[in-house]
Parts: sequence; C-alpha cells; structure tokens
Amino acid sequence: MLNPATPANPVPHLKTALSGPLPDLEKRILESQPAIEHWFRGQWQEHESPFYGSVDLRNSGFKLAPVDTNLFPGGFNNLNPDFLPLCVQATQSAIEKICPDARGVLLIPESHTRNQFYLQNVAALTTILRQAGLIVRIGTLLPEITAPTDIALADGRLITLEPLIRNGRRLMVAGFDPCMILLNNDLSAGVPDVLKDLDQWVLPPVAAGWTTRRKSQHFAHYNTVVNEFAELLKIDPWRINPLFERCGKINFKERQGEECVAGYVSEILTDIKAKYREYGIDHEPFVIVKADAGTYGMGIMTVRDASEVMQLNRNQRKKMAVVKEGLEVQEVLVQEGVYTFESVAEAAAEPVVYMIDHFVVGGFYRVHNERGQDQNLNAPGMSFAPLAFWSPCSTPDHAARPDAAPNRFYAYGVIARLALLAAAREIETLSAAATS
Amino acid sequence: MLNPATPANPVPHLKTALSGPLPDLEKRILESQPAIEHWFRGQWQEHESPFYGSVDLRNSGFKLAPVDTNLFPGGFNNLNPDFLPLCVQATQSAIEKICPDARGVLLIPESHTRNQFYLQNVAALTTILRQAGLIVRIGTLLPEITAPTDIALADGRLITLEPLIRNGRRLMVAGFDPCMILLNNDLSAGVPDVLKDLDQWVLPPVAAGWTTRRKSQHFAHYNTVVNEFAELLKIDPWRINPLFERCGKINFKERQGEECVAGYVSEILTDIKAKYREYGIDHEPFVIVKADAGTYGMGIMTVRDASEVMQLNRNQRKKMAVVKEGLEVQEVLVQEGVYTFESVAEAAAEPVVYMIDHFVVGGFYRVHNERGQDQNLNAPGMSFAPLAFWSPCSTPDHAARPDAAPNRFYAYGVIARLALLAAAREIETLSAAATS
Repeated sequence: MLNPATPANPVPHLKTALSGPLPDLEKRILESQPAIEHWFRGQWQEHESPFYGSVDLRNSGFKLAPVDTNLFPGGFNNLNPDFLPLCVQATQSAIEKICPDARGVLLIPESHTRNQFYLQNVAALTTILRQAGLIVRIGTLLPEITAPTDIALADGRLITLEPLIRNGRRLMVAGFDPCMILLNNDLSAGVPDVLKDLDQWVLPPVAAGWTTRRKSQHFAHYNTVVNEFAELLKIDPWRINPLFERCGKINFKERQGEECVAGYVSEILTDIKAKYREYGIDHEPFVIVKADAGTYGMGIMTVRDASEVMQLNRNQRKKMAVVKEGLEVQEVLVQEGVYTFESVAEAAAEPVVYMIDHFVVGGFYRVHNERGQDQNLNAPGMSFAPLAFWSPCSTPDHAARPDAAPNRFYAYGVIARLALLAAAREIETLSAAATS
Repeated sequence: MLNPATPANPVPHLKTALSGPLPDLEKRILESQPAIEHWFRGQWQEHESPFYGSVDLRNSGFKLAPVDTNLFPGGFNNLNPDFLPLCVQATQSAIEKICPDARGVLLIPESHTRNQFYLQNVAALTTILRQAGLIVRIGTLLPEITAPTDIALADGRLITLEPLIRNGRRLMVAGFDPCMILLNNDLSAGVPDVLKDLDQWVLPPVAAGWTTRRKSQHFAHYNTVVNEFAELLKIDPWRINPLFERCGKINFKERQGEECVAGYVSEILTDIKAKYREYGIDHEPFVIVKADAGTYGMGIMTVRDASEVMQLNRNQRKKMAVVKEGLEVQEVLVQEGVYTFESVAEAAAEPVVYMIDHFVVGGFYRVHNERGQDQNLNAPGMSFAPLAFWSPCSTPDHAARPDAAPNRFYAYGVIARLALLAAAREIETLSAAATS
C-alpha cells in the first residue's frame, strides 16, 4: 500500500489539457454547498441510507461520474487510518437510526479466506464496529468451517471465523444471538438458505445482493437523482452521468444477443460524440460492456466500435460469459466510458469514495501501472496500489481554488453521495419486490 | 497555544501515587464499552441531546468527575484541527435531527469583542457550521453595532458582526431570515427582548441561559444519570460524581446565609473524609464554593474548613458577591473538590471535552502554571494554555493498557457524555418550566 497522500502531495495529478470544464463544475458544486447539503438533508429524510457503500468514480477533467456502486464494500483497510473516528461516528449514527437496540452484530464476509487484502478489510470493519460499541463476531458461509477458526493476517493480527448456526428464524454463532446481521458478501452465488426469512435485521437486505440487483436498475435510479440534482445546480446532467443501455437474453458463448449489444454500443458512441463536439473535447469515445449483475471486475470490456462486439474471439467470449462464483452473464450493461485523467507517477488512478450511513468517511485512489485511461481499473488478478485520501470529503476550502485538493475531494463526496442516494432508492424497489 | 499533543507525548503525566483505582475505573469502562454505548443509544432515544456542550473534568487518579458543564461552549478554536471533519459530521447529524429544513443559521456570540481567544472560537464555530453546509451570519447583541462591522482576528481572518433586526416573531440580520438561531451566549445578563417569543428554532433554548439555569439542578440530574450508570457498571457512583449541596438566599456583602454555606462545607468535608478513608486516600479533602448561576470562573473559592467561610475578609466577600455581567450571587453551590493530578511540565492540567449533538468531537487540556491541583483552572484574567487532545475520545484500544492514552480519552468521553445527558434532562425541565 502506498502511504496516504499528504498535504504536500495531496491528489493525483490531473493530466488533461481540458482543465476548463471540471474546475467549472467543481466551482459550481463549491458555490452551491449550502443548497446541496440542504437538498441531501431533504433526500435522507425521505430515503433510508444503505448501511454502507463505496462508489468508483472516474474523472476525465470534463466529466466526473460514478461507474460502479458497491453495496458490500471491501477495502476499508485502504482508508486513511486518521479517518477511523469518522467511520465510528457514522456507524453510531447508522445503528441509532436503523436498530438502536442492537448490541451484537454478526458480520458475514465473502468466502475468500486466502485474499489477505480482503481479510484486512474484514479486520478493519470489525474494528470500526467494535469502536462504535458493538459486540462483533464473524460468521462464515464456508461449509468447511465447522469450528471457530483463527486466520492470521499478514500484520500478525488474527480474525476468527465461526460456523453459522440457524435456530428457527435466528442466525447465530455459538453462544451469540445477534440483533443484526451485517452482510459484507454480495451474494453472487445466490441467497443461501440460512439467510432467508430471518427475524433479525439484515443489512444491507439480501435483496441488494447480485441475485436480484442489476446495475442497470441502479443507474436508472441514478438518472432520476441526477436529473433532480442537475436542475438544482443548473448543470448539464451528462457532466456527472454516464449514458447507458441494457441488453437481456445474452449468451456470449452461444453468440446470442450480440446484435443488441452492438446496436447500443453504436448508439451510445454516437451520443458521446455529439456531447464531445458540444464541449469541444478531442478524445475518442469508448464504451464499457459489463455484466449487469456481478462484480470484481469480471466480465468487462472496453469497446471503441460496434464491430468489435461482433468479432469477439473464443477467448474473449469465454471471459465475458461468466463472472464471480461462475455466475453466467445473461444481461449486459452498455455504459459510456469515462476516461480517467488522474494519474499518480504516470499510472492511471481512479478515486473510490466510502460512505457509512449517508456520511462520506474517506476514500482512496486505485492506482494502476499496467492499465490505460480507458480501462476498468478494478480487474481480477491485477494489483492496484491504494492511495488513501489525505483529507475527508467534508471540508471544502472556500478560500482556495475550486480545484484545490479539499474542494476536489468535496466534489467527489457529492457525486458519490448521489450514487448512494440512487442505491437507497434502488434498495427500496428491490425490497418492495422481495416482499410482494 | 501549545502544539497539539502527539502520539509520542500524548497526555499529561498523571502525577499521583494512587495509580490503582483510576486504571481500575478505566478498565471497567473499557470492558463495558458495548454495554455503555448500548445504554447511551437508549438514553438518546429518550432525550434530545443539547446542540453542543463542553464539560470540565477533574482527574485525581482515584476519581474522574465533571465539575462544570457549559451549554454555550467557547474554545472550539482550541480543538485539534484534525477533528474538524468530526465536528462537521456531528453538526450535520444535529441539524438533521432538530431542524432538517434549516439552510441559514444566525449565530449570536458573547458580546466581548476584544477577547481574541473568544473571537477565534466564533470563527471556528462559523467554519464548522459552514462546512456542514449552512449559511452562517453573526448577529450581535451589542447595541453600539448598528451596521455590519468587520473584526480582525490575530491571524488576519475577519469576522463580521451584524446588528440584529426583529421582525414580528422573526430574528434576522439585514436580508437574512434564518431558520435557526444558535446561541453562543450564556445570557448571564438576562434574556434580551429580541430573543423572546420567536417562531424560529433557538438552540440551546433561552431557558438554558444563566437567568434560569442553576448548576445545582444540573448536578441533581447528573446524580440520577450517574446512579443509573453506576448500576450498569457496578461501580461506586462517588468515583465519578462530586458531592454537592445548594444554599439560597445568600448575600456575601451583607454576610447573609454564610451559616448555610459553612454548614454544608462541613458536611461535605466529613463525607469526603469518610470516602477517602474507605479508599485509603491520603489527601486533604477540599470543597469548592461557587455561584449556582454564572460562569467564567468568577465567584469561586477553594475551602478546606468551614471556619474559612465565616472569616472571609471584605475583599474575598466582594469577589464572591458578583459574577459575569455584574450578576449578583444569591445562590451558591457547595461542591466536593476534585484534585487534578494531571500535569504538563509541572503545571496543573484539567481536561475539557467538547461535544456536538451527542458525539464527542475533541477536547483539550487547560494547563495552568500558577494554579494548584485543588484550584479552579478556569479563572478570569489567568491565561491557561490549551493543549489539544491528539486523539478523539471514540477510539479506545482494547489491546493496550486501560490507562493508555486512547483509553483514558475514551473514559473522558464517557464521563463527559454522562454530564451531557444530565444537561439534556436539565434542559427538558427548564423548557417545561418556561412554557408552563
């Protein structure tokens, strides 16, 4: 891990000739801070914030937009340790609002027990919850764990995974009946029976897992949120919103549905070109094709021309066909590609913003040596270097330039919160569907 | 101002031979963290937190107790600047709960415009509120300010004081009709007419000012809070609660009511002696006599024997007779003195803990070169050096010793929150009395 950025070296260098429009957007956001915060307050009165979330942003200098919203965020270990108190305070807020009676929390992590980075995230989350005054135990979905099992972290700490026990409508581990289940598992493999029909709080709800969640639904909600917000700020919503379309009934292996994908790729490229012309942007538009359900950067490709979709070779089709846990890709999101023009020592960087309750609690840059500015930086098997934000996203400096570090971080926090608000509305829809 | 304490030099040295009992209390608090936080969550469901508050603590090594709770806290400028994000997040929480519709806040500070330290506090508060996304203007009660007036701070910043305008049941400054009035003025001089019968939010309510507030009422509520808390932790409530009694109908100048004070001094000294014997504490008990209403360390004296009260000379009686704004002392609090055995470079130090909403957001040590361990350290005309806490009070380290810095800070935060909870109940009583 890189050392956290410092005031002396606060943010990746924004490598773009187009420095005009983004500072303009940042200026707008900065000037509108009271209106923005007032608007958010109103929104959070109407919509319950997800327990936590992280948002991948892309900053092209002319556009600042979320490209992925994770409702079961890993990577809490990558945050600046100085922000731990912010995480603790936000967790206390969340618990107070959602389940003030909670004393005990059962954390259910992903089942990859050999990924040191992920295990460190579990340890970081456990620390945050304990500091917030909760009793925390970790229950695993791994069937091979039949007794409490210590797993050593690289730094010498231990975390203990325990087998889950289902008792009527309660999920427990030995001698511990928690008030609340905190999922840090995105349920890519489906909703396990032990998690069904519980009378405990399950956060986020199982309906937010990838069995039922769809990126296209998330971005549809994001559209609505952005349109309201753009109206408030009098900005072109495109400046913070990537175009997208969705194709169902896809089978990459059998070459089914490729025409749908190619058609939308073509449409979206045309729309981006029009926007680039409007803003005088001299870059080649690109589109990202990715699985509509699923995560971990699997099943993702960068496309610059519709013909590429029709000419996928066997290997490429295989890669696109399955995501995590072998889930087959049947639906696809075709999304406007947003360049990342931020870089750290020549390597492409993208900001990831973390929230607990509706508070921004930190973030980091994903820094990639081997990937381009038009590629997904959250790819499997590729080791990104996390660069922790040196300042939180809540302390803009009105005396400084709009693109000064605290102000850029504030803009990141605003856009990330728009995505979180979309996720809140999305979870409402998913939960309503699950109970109907 | 001293530099903030650092991890290398984290807390004042606790100078006491009696290192046994306090680490024991700290250990108890640390072990009980989940129970404590759960209990506080329940309390804050039932009682609305004051908007903000600061609590003066005294730590004698065998006793850790609040001696004063300020509902209009100055000194935000003394907090560690690294905790600004915590202040901002807590302010957002407070606004959301109390008045989510608020956009504009009118801050009403104390009227001493020549006290640079206080003006820096006003600037710090303004920054916190602005970072939380509010529009802030500062309205003054000073009649001589009839037009917006810039006042320069020592660091070159400006704050602008504006004359108040009363318009029907609204309090405004020119062109600004705020949703909320934030009082940073303790109303020692009484409740001015402009603040009466407003239909805006006034926080804290005017009933919390010194016209109606009494320390004895606060500590009566604190008694109740501590008894519940001590039950939860199975500790002797005396360990965190100073004994007190109250005398009314006092007139120091006319030597009226001195018998009452002397009587209670004698009683309390006897009770302290019994407690010191029980715990094997080899120190001379002392008592603090102070005005039951009022602040700024005026009208306070340290007494070791009841006879001292009867033998006050003319000068001493004059000193005790009036507090801030010439308010005459008619009621007196007789309070168990708590030694401060914390010291910084041989100077006596006492911790002051700051809260916004019900969250601890930082604190500092008041460090005095010229005052003893049995004296009030918040005295007029005496310049204390503030030493900012280097860590917030929300991140105890369960792997460290109970008296390690983060754990001592956590204990401070717990005791301070008990005092804040007492203040919440006190404000309920005061508000009910004001509207009945």
